Amino acid sequence: MTSRCIIIANGDMNDYHWHKSLLQENDFIICADGGTRHALAMGIIPQVVLGDFDSLSPEAKCALSDTGCHFEEHPEEKDMTDTELALKCCLARNPDEILLLGVLGTRYDHSMANLFLLARIPGHIQAKAVNEQNEIMLLREEVKFSGSPGDLVSLIPLSAEVKGIFTKGLKYMLRNATLDQGSSRGVSNEMVEAEASIRIKDGMALVIRAWDQPRN
Amino acid sequence: MTSRCIIIANGDMNDYHWHKSLLQENDFIICADGGTRHALAMGIIPQVVLGDFDSLSPEAKCALSDTGCHFEEHPEEKDMTDTELALKCCLARNPDEILLLGVLGTRYDHSMANLFLLARIPGHIQAKAVNEQNEIMLLREEVKFSGSPGDLVSLIPLSAEVKGIFTKGLKYMLRNATLDQGSSRGVSNEMVEAEASIRIKDGMALVIRAWDQPRN
Repeated sequence: MTSRCIIIANGDMNDYHWHKSLLQENDFIICADGGTRHALAMGIIPQVVLGDFDSLSPEAKCALSDTGCHFEEHPEEKDMTDTELALKCCLARNPDEILLLGVLGTRYDHSMANLFLLARIPGHIQAKAVNEQNEIMLLREEVKFSGSPGDLVSLIPLSAEVKGIFTKGLKYMLRNATLDQGSSRGVSNEMVEAEASIRIKDGMALVIRAWDQPRN
Repeated sequence: MTSRCIIIANGDMNDYHWHKSLLQENDFIICADGGTRHALAMGIIPQVVLGDFDSLSPEAKCALSDTGCHFEEHPEEKDMTDTELALKCCLARNPDEILLLGVLGTRYDHSMANLFLLARIPGHIQAKAVNEQNEIMLLREEVKFSGSPGDLVSLIPLSAEVKGIFTKGLKYMLRNATLDQGSSRGVSNEMVEAEASIRIKDGMALVIRAWDQPRN
């Protein structure tokens, strides 16, 4: 059985029903500080809550007393965000998969820092950040995904260059292509089959699947 | 007099009054396709509207007839997003400053691609992307900014490493520091003076100033 860690951070989370449907019984759930409110709103008891607790309400803390949830308090002046602390805790368990929830929002300082945390996750662990409109994966060698023809898929270079790009199952085929940072050429490709993949030989990129309307 | 180009893209723009207050009389305004709706909502006549016009409403086109606005239509199957086309048009005018509006939103494929467009702008041109909660600048050598003590400032590495980081006017001082991609250490620094600056010797980063509540 694969082991999975879920990180719930304090970003935006609008549709709790949709988010809860992503969770499975054996998930190990770590809340970063104020992200605890999202877990409680979903009726979920996290295994660990950590952070400097500057955004954890007394009500949330109270609601988790006697549940077996472990609280891990860190000093306010630290070198990592609460979400990076949560990721560190997560990596110590060496899971097969990591799912980042509540990591995106209107505050782009946190959203960007949270997305770049994907680069902190060893390549053998499957990891993605999702919300109702986005599924974001880090591409180091290859990513594969399922969907429906017409689904949008974008490739956003994170390194100065991404070389040797090959796509399968996408409308605009790339064969040993190169994209440089800042190029918008990889935006809005489209799935033409139920399975697709993007492989690269060198560099690092984000693969973003996005929906105009929140997914059901 | 400095010359300034404004790009208005089709992302989220909630407070039109606030956005309009950023504009000056001599700005050269380029709308990327559906971004035209934002210009019209602000009562602004752009000089240029360009894109594949898949998100430009007939009403918007009609409203701009006889205004002198120049329409530049591009084929749907192209290698750049409408916003990158708008940037190209902008760079051809060699302005002193570029302001990107409507480039952020819930669709992270477009938001990320738009932010990385900052890397396409030559270093001698001052450029930033802003909305009601974020001011985002690309840092290649140095950025300087004004604000109030307590204002949050985050440094997000875009290159594998950012080296030789020096800060002025910020609470957590960095002196010849190095940050690697994925590190959240640069998140939530704070202005302690009315002027601040961040200088780096090597690499590329985003400087993000963010507000929890939309600015007035």
